[in-house]
Amino acid sequence: MTATSTPVDNGVNVEALLGAREALGAAPEAATFEWRASCEWQHGTHSTTKVEGFFGLGEEQRHRTRYAFDVDHPEIFASEDNGATPVEYVLVGLVGCLTAGVAAVAQMREIQLRRVTATIEGDMDVRGILGMDTDVRNGFSAIRVTYDIDADASDEDIRALVAQSQKRSAVYDILTNPTDVRVEVS
Amino acid sequence: MTATSTPVDNGVNVEALLGAREALGAAPEAATFEWRASCEWQHGTHSTTKVEGFFGLGEEQRHRTRYAFDVDHPEIFASEDNGATPVEYVLVGLVGCLTAGVAAVAQMREIQLRRVTATIEGDMDVRGILGMDTDVRNGFSAIRVTYDIDADASDEDIRALVAQSQKRSAVYDILTNPTDVRVEVS
Repeated sequence: MTATSTPVDNGVNVEALLGAREALGAAPEAATFEWRASCEWQHGTHSTTKVEGFFGLGEEQRHRTRYAFDVDHPEIFASEDNGATPVEYVLVGLVGCLTAGVAAVAQMREIQLRRVTATIEGDMDVRGILGMDTDVRNGFSAIRVTYDIDADASDEDIRALVAQSQKRSAVYDILTNPTDVRVEVS
Repeated sequence: MTATSTPVDNGVNVEALLGAREALGAAPEAATFEWRASCEWQHGTHSTTKVEGFFGLGEEQRHRTRYAFDVDHPEIFASEDNGATPVEYVLVGLVGCLTAGVAAVAQMREIQLRRVTATIEGDMDVRGILGMDTDVRNGFSAIRVTYDIDADASDEDIRALVAQSQKRSAVYDILTNPTDVRVEVS
């Protein structure tokens, strides 16, 4: 063999992730994370939520910058549409989680990605949130995610890549399994 | 009585919501919504997701403008922190949903809100997403939301307001109950 192959680079630092796994194996208490956000009501159905600090690796952490998100309902619900809807934020979280996973797993498996796009759709019968029919759930009845991936790999390897990302995805787990949510007034 | 009371105004158009309920009662097929987002991988764990169109009330709808969201992992995971994490987007969706509900229910109940803030925290053991321990789930083990509300109402009425918002919340339902999620490659 005289040809030298270009190393696969999807921008994911696999060595650091493997190092983290080793470090957390020795100190599992550092794996306890607390993610946070703080919300301020603006007017009508419009609120602004900020994300900055979190807890992990045994200490307080901060994002590189503070992220702010406007949440609102659309004009067809007689709102001002000052931001995406709450349920769209959930879709953003799911597709972002799966896509980060695709890049990380591709790096582990030495698959060079060229382009990854995905569409996500969530079905909802709004008679649930309007309180019109107690047999209709408030949330999504189904979610579909469809990937279109251009990579140096067979169709079979690409399908396996997406399946592995799904298996390790935090948000996929959050949506497909129940979580204990406590809502209180201080 | 000679005093005139100032009408309660939280910026929520209750008449329109009640009108929608009546219209959807007569034409339940119009209550079928499809919420959507489209994601493009950038580099590493960073992706950008856009939200603009959706389907509802029997036809294609559009937000007033296109919303774009950067999703990434933080620097302590050897990523570039170009956006909030996927799980933080889920928290943004939940607290935004509950807060919109607080405003809407307050308007229905003629409670004037002055200030509504909330903090939200999600616990996660990252050994799940790192694939270190199959007994640890990938998602949140628990979520806590705490409201601080200044309103023309008793503590009891404020607690009832938050409880009713929780009961009708789409994202609360999504997080506390399982949803069928299909992930495919086109």
